[in-house]
Formats: sequence, C-alpha cells, structure tokens
Amino acid sequence: MRSFGSDNNSGAHPRMLAAIAEANVDHAIAYGDDDWTRRAENVIRKMLDRNDINPVFVFNGTGANVVALSACLQPFQSVICAATAHIATDECGAPVKFTGSSLKEIPTPDGKLTPELVKTQLHGFGFEHHSQPKVIAISQTTEMGTVYTPQEVRALADLAHEYEMYLFVDGTRMANACASLNLSLKAITADCGVDIFTIGGTKNGLLFGEALVPMREELARNIKYHRKQTTQLYSKMRFVSAQFIPYLEEGIWLQNAAHSNASAQKLADEMRKISEIEITQSVDANAVFFIAPKSLTDRLLECYFFYPWDEERNEMRLVCSWDTSEDDIRNFIDYLRSISEK
Amino acid sequence: MRSFGSDNNSGAHPRMLAAIAEANVDHAIAYGDDDWTRRAENVIRKMLDRNDINPVFVFNGTGANVVALSACLQPFQSVICAATAHIATDECGAPVKFTGSSLKEIPTPDGKLTPELVKTQLHGFGFEHHSQPKVIAISQTTEMGTVYTPQEVRALADLAHEYEMYLFVDGTRMANACASLNLSLKAITADCGVDIFTIGGTKNGLLFGEALVPMREELARNIKYHRKQTTQLYSKMRFVSAQFIPYLEEGIWLQNAAHSNASAQKLADEMRKISEIEITQSVDANAVFFIAPKSLTDRLLECYFFYPWDEERNEMRLVCSWDTSEDDIRNFIDYLRSISEK
Amino acid sequence: MRSFGSDNNSGAHPRMLAAIAEANVDHAIAYGDDDWTRRAENVIRKMLDRNDINPVFVFNGTGANVVALSACLQPFQSVICAATAHIATDECGAPVKFTGSSLKEIPTPDGKLTPELVKTQLHGFGFEHHSQPKVIAISQTTEMGTVYTPQEVRALADLAHEYEMYLFVDGTRMANACASLNLSLKAITADCGVDIFTIGGTKNGLLFGEALVPMREELARNIKYHRKQTTQLYSKMRFVSAQFIPYLEEGIWLQNAAHSNASAQKLADEMRKISEIEITQSVDANAVFFIAPKSLTDRLLECYFFYPWDEERNEMRLVCSWDTSEDDIRNFIDYLRSISEK
Amino acid sequence: MRSFGSDNNSGAHPRMLAAIAEANVDHAIAYGDDDWTRRAENVIRKMLDRNDINPVFVFNGTGANVVALSACLQPFQSVICAATAHIATDECGAPVKFTGSSLKEIPTPDGKLTPELVKTQLHGFGFEHHSQPKVIAISQTTEMGTVYTPQEVRALADLAHEYEMYLFVDGTRMANACASLNLSLKAITADCGVDIFTIGGTKNGLLFGEALVPMREELARNIKYHRKQTTQLYSKMRFVSAQFIPYLEEGIWLQNAAHSNASAQKLADEMRKISEIEITQSVDANAVFFIAPKSLTDRLLECYFFYPWDEERNEMRLVCSWDTSEDDIRNFIDYLRSISEK
Repeated sequence: MRSFGSDNNSGAHPRMLAAIAEANVDHAIAYGDDDWTRRAENVIRKMLDRNDINPVFVFNGTGANVVALSACLQPFQSVICAATAHIATDECGAPVKFTGSSLKEIPTPDGKLTPELVKTQLHGFGFEHHSQPKVIAISQTTEMGTVYTPQEVRALADLAHEYEMYLFVDGTRMANACASLNLSLKAITADCGVDIFTIGGTKNGLLFGEALVPMREELARNIKYHRKQTTQLYSKMRFVSAQFIPYLEEGIWLQNAAHSNASAQKLADEMRKISEIEITQSVDANAVFFIAPKSLTDRLLECYFFYPWDEERNEMRLVCSWDTSEDDIRNFIDYLRSISEK
Repeated sequence: MRSFGSDNNSGAHPRMLAAIAEANVDHAIAYGDDDWTRRAENVIRKMLDRNDINPVFVFNGTGANVVALSACLQPFQSVICAATAHIATDECGAPVKFTGSSLKEIPTPDGKLTPELVKTQLHGFGFEHHSQPKVIAISQTTEMGTVYTPQEVRALADLAHEYEMYLFVDGTRMANACASLNLSLKAITADCGVDIFTIGGTKNGLLFGEALVPMREELARNIKYHRKQTTQLYSKMRFVSAQFIPYLEEGIWLQNAAHSNASAQKLADEMRKISEIEITQSVDANAVFFIAPKSLTDRLLECYFFYPWDEERNEMRLVCSWDTSEDDIRNFIDYLRSISEK
Repeated sequence: MRSFGSDNNSGAHPRMLAAIAEANVDHAIAYGDDDWTRRAENVIRKMLDRNDINPVFVFNGTGANVVALSACLQPFQSVICAATAHIATDECGAPVKFTGSSLKEIPTPDGKLTPELVKTQLHGFGFEHHSQPKVIAISQTTEMGTVYTPQEVRALADLAHEYEMYLFVDGTRMANACASLNLSLKAITADCGVDIFTIGGTKNGLLFGEALVPMREELARNIKYHRKQTTQLYSKMRFVSAQFIPYLEEGIWLQNAAHSNASAQKLADEMRKISEIEITQSVDANAVFFIAPKSLTDRLLECYFFYPWDEERNEMRLVCSWDTSEDDIRNFIDYLRSISEK
Repeated sequence: MRSFGSDNNSGAHPRMLAAIAEANVDHAIAYGDDDWTRRAENVIRKMLDRNDINPVFVFNGTGANVVALSACLQPFQSVICAATAHIATDECGAPVKFTGSSLKEIPTPDGKLTPELVKTQLHGFGFEHHSQPKVIAISQTTEMGTVYTPQEVRALADLAHEYEMYLFVDGTRMANACASLNLSLKAITADCGVDIFTIGGTKNGLLFGEALVPMREELARNIKYHRKQTTQLYSKMRFVSAQFIPYLEEGIWLQNAAHSNASAQKLADEMRKISEIEITQSVDANAVFFIAPKSLTDRLLECYFFYPWDEERNEMRLVCSWDTSEDDIRNFIDYLRSISEK
C-alpha cells in the first residue's frame, strides 16, 4: 500500500530503527535519566543557542500539545486558535479536557491567524465572567499546508506579549516549515519570540516521539509534572531520545521534510494540469488541497486512501511523506488522468 | 550498566525490534485501521476465547490505567485501591485528574486487597454527599511483588458485582502473574470475572506498548474516544500491534516473565544466606523487597541503582528483568557479600 | 440607585421575602428532604403535567447550566451553542471546566440557533479524533433579548433527536419567554421536545434560586450527584423551595416577567423617537439593544450603569426588571433626550 | 420539628432576615460591586487587622472549600487532610474534581491532624511520579467536634511553610472554635500563620453564605476567577454581604456559636448520666458523639433525626444549633431516659 492519506501512514526512516537498535544494549535508568536523553537535549539547546532551556520528549503530537498548554494555562484562561487547528478539530477535545480552559476558534481562509483576527478575541481582560485570553496557538506548518513567515510569527508573538499572553507553536511539521522557508529552527521560533513549541518526529520519519521546548523558565518549571500527569512520560525514554539525536544532528529531519515538500510540489504541479482539479491552498509544505467533481474523487477514493476535508465543497487533502517516491506520484497522476473526463 | 532498579531499565527483546522492522514496509492507514492491529486483537480474543471483545493498544502503563478508569467512571464515583497501588502512588495523580473521581486508598501488608479490606469503604451508596464506590482496582502482580490467586481475584470480582461495581486489574506485570501461577491469561482474568484489565508490554520486553481489554460492552463502547482524549492513541499503531503479535503468539511474554520471576527467586535465595538481609515480602514474581542496615544499603547504592521503598524501615526494592543474567545475579551477590559485615 | 444594567440589579420581590420568613420556623431536614421542596417539585410537575419528573433546585444560573450539561455529557462530547450564549461568554469557562467537553460556538445575527446553523457542526460522528456532538444548547429568551417560537424550539429538538443528541434550554429568563409568547411553560418546553431545561428565579424577583428540570430518566438519574459535586447543593434548601412555591403557584413569575417585558417595550418605543438611537434587536422580552453615537452613550454612562455589548459598533444593552417603574423609564428617557443633540 | 441532626437543620437568625430586608431597596450593581459588600469586606479586614486582604463571599461551605483549594493548587499537587475531613467525605469528591489534585487522607482518633501525622505524607518532593504535597487542610472545629488550639494550628502552619506548602482552614464552624477557645478570629487564624481560611455562616444562623479569606497575595490574585468558574459567584451579592455585616459586627456569630456550644455541653452532661451512653469525643464545640446499644439508638431514631457516624461501632452524632432551646434538650433527654433500660 502506498498512500497520500497522511504523513503518518508512512513508516520509520531506517536510520531511526538503527538508532533504536544501537541504544538497545544493557540497562539504562528509566524516565530520561540516561545519556541518550541528555545528548538529545543538548542537540536542541545547541540548535537554539540556549544552554538554559530544558526540552522534554513525549510520545505523540496530541500529547505534546496538551503538555505545552498545561504548562501555559490555568483553567479560567483561554486559548485563541484557528478554527482548523489540530487542537480544535483533531484531538477529541483533549486540550480542553486537560486544562479546563476554553478554546476560542477563529475561522481563517488559509489556516493562519493574524494579529487582526486574534484581536477580535482580545477583550474581557480582568472581567471575571470572561475566560481570560492567555495563549495564542498556531500550527507551523498549518493544517492547511501553509507556512507562517518569521515576520508573521513575530507579529503574533509581539501581540501575545503585549497582553501578557504566550505564543505556542504546534510544530508537528516544524521541519517542513524550516525546509519550506529555508530557515533554521532558531530563526522561526526563538528569534521570533515564540514562548513554547514542539518539534514533530512521528510524521517525519521517527518511529514515534516528539520534542517539546519551553523557552521561558516559568513554562519549564513544572513541565515534568505535566508530562507525567498527562500520561506522556515514557519509561524507556532512551529509545525516543536515541532517535532524536541522528534526526536532528545528521539533518535527517530537514532532508525528510524537504523531500516531502518537494513531492507535494510535484504532485500539485501535475494535478494543476488536469482541468477538473482546482488546487485550493498554497502548497507551501507537504500537503495539497484540491477540489474536484465528486464523481472523480469517488473513483479516486476507490483506489487511494485520503481524507475529504470539506464535504460541502468536496475539498480533499493529500499529504506527501518522507518516503513518497516518484513512482508514487506518477502512479497517482496516471490513475487520476485515466479517470478524469478531459 | 546492569540494574535491578526496575524492569523498565532493561531494553527491548530482539524479537520485538525484528517485528517492528518487518512491519516497516510501505504505508499503512494510521490509528489502528491496519492488518497488524487486527491480527493482534485477534490473538487476544483467542487467548480469552471471546470473539466479541475489542482490545485496544496504548503507549504506556499509566495511559492504560487512565483509559481503563475513564471507561468505568463518572466523576462522582470513586475507586478503591491498595495504598501501594501504582495508580495511587506513581502516576502523579493522573487517574484522579482525568476522571475527576476520588481514590480511596487502603493500607495493606502485602499490596493485596481483600473483600474485608474493600468492605471498609463500601458505604454511602445513594448518599449524594459521598463519592459513590464504582471500581475495585488491583494490580497483578502487585507493586509489592505478590500475586493474587484466581480465588482471590474471583472473590473481589464477586464483591464488586454485588455492588454493581467493576473489578479493574492493572496488569502491567500480568505475564509475571501467569508465569508465577502457571495459569493462562484467561484463567486469571476472564474466568475470575474481571471486568477490564491491561496486559503490560513495556516492562516485559516490548520497546513500548500495552494492551487494554474491556470485557463488557458498556466499557468498550466509548473506549476509543477515551483513548484519543487521553493522548494515548498512537498514529503509527502497527508498530505496537506488530510487537504484540509475536509477544503473545510466540510465547515471548511468558518466557520473559518466567525468566524474570526465576531470577528474582535466585536473587532472593542468595540474599537470604546473608544474615544482615531480611526479605520482607513473598517473592511471588520478579521483585525482591528487603531490609538491611543503612550502612550496607548505602554502599550497595554506590554501585547499583535501585529504589528505597520505605525510608523509615530502610526497606529496598530490587526488580529482575526479562534479560537479567546469571552473571548479573552473581556479581550483585558477590558485591553484596563483600560489603556485608558477616 | 435605579438601573437598566441587568435584571439582577433589582432586589427580591416582597412575596419572596415573606415566603422565606414563613418557612423560617423550627427545624427542617437539610438538602431538600423537606415539605417545602416536595411541594415546589410538585408545582413544577403539575405545570408540565408529568408526575414522573424530578426537578432540582440550585443557587444560580451558571450552576444550573453546569449541572444540566454535566448530566448530558461525557468529556469526549461537545455542545453546540450560539456564540453569544451565556455558557460560552459569561461563565468564565465553567461548563467546559466541569464537563471536560468542548463548546462549538456559532455566530448568529440574533442569538438564535437554527437547524441550518447547527448542521454546520454535525459531522465527525463515530470519528474518534472529533469531539462528538451531543447537546444543542439554546437560551430562552436569548442573550440578545429575542425569543424562540415553539416551532423553532421543536425544529431544534427534532434535529437533536435525529442525531441522538439532547436539546438543553438555558431558561434563566424562561418566564419572559412565556410572557412574551403568551404560552405556558409546558407549551414551550415539554411540548416541543426539550430534554432538559432551567427555570430562572434570581433575575425575575427571587432572592436567589433556580430550578433545573430533566425530562428524561437518563438525565435525571445522577443529577443529585452532579448538583452536589458542582457545589450547588444548598443545605437549607427549604428557603429556595419556599420561594418557588408562590413564585410559580401564585403567578408571580409571569406577572414579573410580563412587567419587565412591557417596560422594555415602553423604553424602546420612547428611544425610537430619538433620531440618534437605533434599536438593533427585536425587543421580544425585557432587553433593549441599541446603537448611538459614542459621545451620547458616554454621557449616558455617567448617570446610568449598563453594559456596552459590542464595542466596535458601540452597541449597548439595557435590561428592564420586575420592578422597573414608569418613573424609571421617564427619568431615563428625559435624561437621554436632554443629552441628545437633536 | 426540632432536630439535633445538624446545625443546618435550623433556620436563619431573625437579624439576618432583617438585614436582607433592609438591603432590599432599589437597585445595586451585581456581583459584589456594591456598598454592602465593601462594608462586609472591611469588617473582616478590621477583625484581622489587615487592610491589604480581599475576602470574598460565596454561597456555601463546599463552594468555599473548592474555591480556596483551587487558589492553592495545580493539578499535579496534593492535599493532606484528616480522613474525616468534610472535603474528603462529604463533598462528593468536588475538591478533587475541580482541582484535579489528589487528597491524601490520614486516619486520626479525633479529627485533628498533627505535624507527626502530616509528616507521613511529606515525601516524594521533586519526584515527578508523585503528586506533590502543597496544602495541609484542617477543619476548625473538626468534623468530630474537637477544636485545634492556636499552638496546634501554628505548628501545622510552620510545618507547611517549611515545605513551601499552604495551611488551609475549613472554618465552616470557625465561630464555634472562637467561642470554645474564647479567642478572636485573628488569634486562631492570622496570628497562627494560616494562609487561607473560610468563615462559615450557613450553619450558624445565616440564611446562606460563607466568607473566604486569602491571607497571601498569590492566593488572592485570581480568586475571583476561581469563584466564578466554580459557579459560586452570586449575582445579587448584597444579600449575602448584608448578612455578614451584622453577623460579625454585632457579635451574632459568637453569640450563636457560644449558645450552640453551651447547648452541646448541657446535652452531653445529661447524656453522661445515662449508663448505656458513652460519649466518644471531647465536646469542645457544638457536636456530641456517642455510642449506645443499637436497640436504644433505633428507638431514638424513630423520634429524632440524626446521623449514624460509624455503623460498626454504632457511634452517633448529635449537633446543637444557634437556636437549640432548653426545652429541646430536656425533651430529648426525657425521651432518651424513657427508652433507656436502666
């Protein structure tokens, strides 16, 4: 099976399995008190040029988001996010359940918040009847496959700080953003004033595992308790850390992301040639959104697994992976052409 | 490093890494809609001779416990457990946080609940001021290294059902219990009236992963939502399921557990020969609890990592693993003898 | 001080204080096991012609809403409401905090949900990533001073039931709706398929107290535990029940509501004569929304306390009370005219 | 009906109803922005000689406890309390539900914690697997009718502060403690290092209402949000505040408490003369605990409503109220004697 369903339909990069096998010797103290974890933390500190930060590792993206938000929020506070945000639509309400906080979801054309959009929710400060805005949450790349520029991130961070709020970045596909912008992790997070963010692994070649990076001491202070209480503390931590070391140090994260981004470009380029297809979002990263006649997408779904995005408009989402091959694209396009009317 | 600190200090059994590598081909639909997961579910159905049950897989033990309890409880209900239960002492309050329910912790000499002990908390039914008892939670093996007989489990299940409550078994070390009792999984769960239980993997040779088995339809009905909202839904599920297939089908789970149990027996036997050492709990499974003079345990801790259990009594815990070797035991005993006064 | 700030700025109707004084004799068993409470429950049963229902009494409106939603929801489910709903904007996130559930807020022109609006959120059923829609929540009267017709309520109830959801009505101002429609409580709740609703007291002449009426057994079953755990169980319950008896039996609830509705009509009629004022919502009940030049509303706010509603449009809200007098209206209009330019 | 069932079986002191009636004029801004509330706050400030504190008023005792604990705790922290504490046994798990925190319940002979007892739970600091101890919670008077001396309170406060924890006092019956000790509110709270406490009203003559007093800025900072989110913010606040003014200023609180304490003394003195009765707790305040043959207590329960406390020992609880009369006591004793065998 080959799929454009999601970047989590692909498997693990062989280097990750090798790293796990290498770490699978003897015993190691559990819960992260091991050399692999210390090394992996240091890799991230170095990338961000910040010796004073304490990254933590967790199992998955929803877990990373929930731990991050738990570190930022008290229950009477709220999070402002795009209506398409993963935390709002794809986590079965986990962030709300865990934090007791409210989400304020803002419709956007492209999955991206702007200061203007956020400001529509910046009221009621000090008014006890109103859940107090405390976090602006964005996804980089967005769930619509678009990417925030550093300037756009900085503008949101400045707005957050003006109101004593935090900017959180769900970086499930942070690597794809770096590759797309051709910028370093530091350039699109620390240098833009981001307060806390995640670095995705699972969707970009890891067997499993995500990193969570609090950039402020007050967000880092209790994060180990939040991680544990959120059920996201892995006992045999070395096996996540051991993946993150080559993933980041050997550039696999960017290489994988660049590949999936380029695959999406190719895929979109080919699709644009088919007149019945309309690409609906800017293909900044590894996702392609498109509209086509239902008769066409129905036939496509017979052979390929992928997610309808907006049933009303018959908008579909395709996602490329670190291992999407030229054959995968060619086969898909060939089939698409064969069932297309014109 | 070789350790008796915990069975999660050991690594993964090579067969598990092989299984992961075998499953690491092509793409698979995420979140468990894959062949490996269907097969792993069937293995468990067959072991329990129940085609109608739907086991689910999660990342870790705390996650498994929280999902199980979420399926059983409303927030105005309570859980009765031993004061030494993992859910009470080692999960940073995660079960309480998630379910909103209260834990009623009962002191025990050996980590085991009995109907008599449980009955001390069976009151206030129908009285709205009182959190309503709904779950009896036991650990098999217990956190004290002891094992419930099937008769003991059955007695607790009967008591639970008499009060329209559920019996939940935290089976982090279920394999060690089966090996210790020389009984099947079915014989100590389904046949005893257990309503919901877990089958541990991480502490017994898996890279990561636990199974959760609801035996009643009303507990299974919404469990996929609880798993997702608890952040315990793994996207690349096939890599947990692929481990569970050989783990259970090829008998690795019992083989590993029998080995760690036997290792603990050997270790305890040798320790009993040292007059300063007092073994404090029945060595039913893979843990050895002992008391020794502080001067001795301090020196031991210089060379070996393990957890002090009861600081007042200077009681310590040692745990054997699936990969504990004869050398590990010999070296430990030799060192222990060398620092022992007599 | 005389105010159009809110109907909770007014005091208690004298009959309520008399009822409390009458009940203040001897002792009574606490928590509702008393004759006043049994009588008050019966009054509501009679009004709804349902002997099998069990209304409960609570302290305040936010409490009533939270208890109602707790009875309807599991944490992985969600509530669909108007973006202006009290539960979404004025309860500091209490419903979300308590239930762990998500709110899906829908913008409306007039505070009223319609089946078409609700349907935009009716998707993702059975999909574990998506918080499962379970409750349609409306306010009667709405927070915009508008009133749902029985047909409109019925259409929402039918839609809810088609999807195995519940229709909850926040009836903080239910009396105003009955008075406005000239229909009985039964006609706009039970007869329309409402599953659970509240009957407000505090904003309509009670010293304090609200009733909560579950119309289905499964919603009533555990409601006493939800009330207690929500901190809404009043020990000296007789003093709330004793108010509800004359409030409902002697028609005070409708009389007060009819008076405040009529006052709002008069107020709006007079305001419409002032050319700078634009009335922005249908004055169905006891609230008047209007837009005026900021210079005018600033001067008005110097003498009168009331809430700006929409700062961008400079929209203001006035609310009439059960005790709003002709003098109150005349004085307000006279002052308004005196500061108005034309 | 006359009852020794609970001090919440009695009604409201006439001065409270008069105070409500006096405040029931004109309109007042809701939610506590009114003169009565400002005055009531000042009365408390004066009693404690602290101009910088901000007391808040809530509906009931469970609400007061939950708001107080919400101000003190993060979900990964825990509360140490006596096993008989109201927060542990009589609030249907509300404190745990709201805060997400764990309760650690300690058995005591008399309802009183001591530093020695508390220390058994003071471990695991900094260990992420362990819910972090943060609050010592005591009840003054205790649920067993006993009273902490100022020295005992101070010892617990010192211990709390040594571990950077808070001492919370559930003062539902604080007046009874002051009356029993013949000491001021300040002497048994502020002067002993108490960090946050409540002052009960409902059980001591108020129609309804409790005060909550945070003594530290960090506990006061967000308390208005916790109160609102806990559903404990009363819109017509003036009617609680208006009671607290005469209650505290005119000495009614102490007068009522002294009366109920003295009544309990008389009751106990008479009961001690009956040989079948054994008084089981020190009668420090307004409660009398006793053991008697079941045949006797069964007959007593036919005529009088009160709560069995410990069914195993057939221990019963009687509580005197602010309005317990000499006749009430005489009638009870006469009846008790008439059914007693000797």
